[in-house]
Amino acid sequence: MYDQTCVFCREIIKSNNAAYVYKDNDVIAFMDNAPIEEGHVLVIPKDHFVNIFDIDKEIYIKTQLMVKRIAIAVKLALKTDGINIGQNNGRVANQVVMHYHVHIIPRYYRKKINWEREKMDMESLKTTADKIIKKLEDVKI
Amino acid sequence: MYDQTCVFCREIIKSNNAAYVYKDNDVIAFMDNAPIEEGHVLVIPKDHFVNIFDIDKEIYIKTQLMVKRIAIAVKLALKTDGINIGQNNGRVANQVVMHYHVHIIPRYYRKKINWEREKMDMESLKTTADKIIKKLEDVKI
Repeated sequence: MYDQTCVFCREIIKSNNAAYVYKDNDVIAFMDNAPIEEGHVLVIPKDHFVNIFDIDKEIYIKTQLMVKRIAIAVKLALKTDGINIGQNNGRVANQVVMHYHVHIIPRYYRKKINWEREKMDMESLKTTADKIIKKLEDVKI
Repeated sequence: MYDQTCVFCREIIKSNNAAYVYKDNDVIAFMDNAPIEEGHVLVIPKDHFVNIFDIDKEIYIKTQLMVKRIAIAVKLALKTDGINIGQNNGRVANQVVMHYHVHIIPRYYRKKINWEREKMDMESLKTTADKIIKKLEDVKI
């Protein structure tokens, strides 16, 4: 299922225009290009689902398992003190892209976050992605 | 696995001191007694796990599936415009109780939230829980 009006379907799935952490036929993970904190990863299903209400059950499970693996890899790679997992449903709940996605956001005691987004260049995103990928290979759950 | 120093193990699992939405041998859902918004539900594993890093894989899947079912039931029961799903890992990420839990938070266009908590009496919590339970029976995923 591909939705040409969806920016994730177009940019992340069709045009390969992201710093990827993981890809298979069901689930894709990539660096948010306007992170709340450096190391902010998004995990999405490859097929277009809008939210937690309509996402297919098996794809939902695969997405959640990838969230757990990547959260562990992010913690190891970036030595975070904590991690927020967030998933917004509906514009009122701050969902901006209407393609189901889970946020993995690193947290550090030494840095306050203000929940605002800052655009990051692709090279920096890929450098961070590479660190996470290296750890991900060893993360078994 | 029971941790007597954990308020969820003591109050929610041992003392039955909550407005429950769902219970089985693996997963429990109940109304947050200091909700960010009316209808704020927490979903937890019955066994004591601290966070996304240490939670057992099968229990994690069961918890996530219950989150999906309850999010749908909350939307139907309370006619929400949206829902935030959140799961915090570590004190720096605003985790207060060190027993893995997922927040399901209703959102409405007509009401702004300030992410602050307000204590609610048990009777009101049970009234809301009953509305969600009625819808949950019909939610198949």
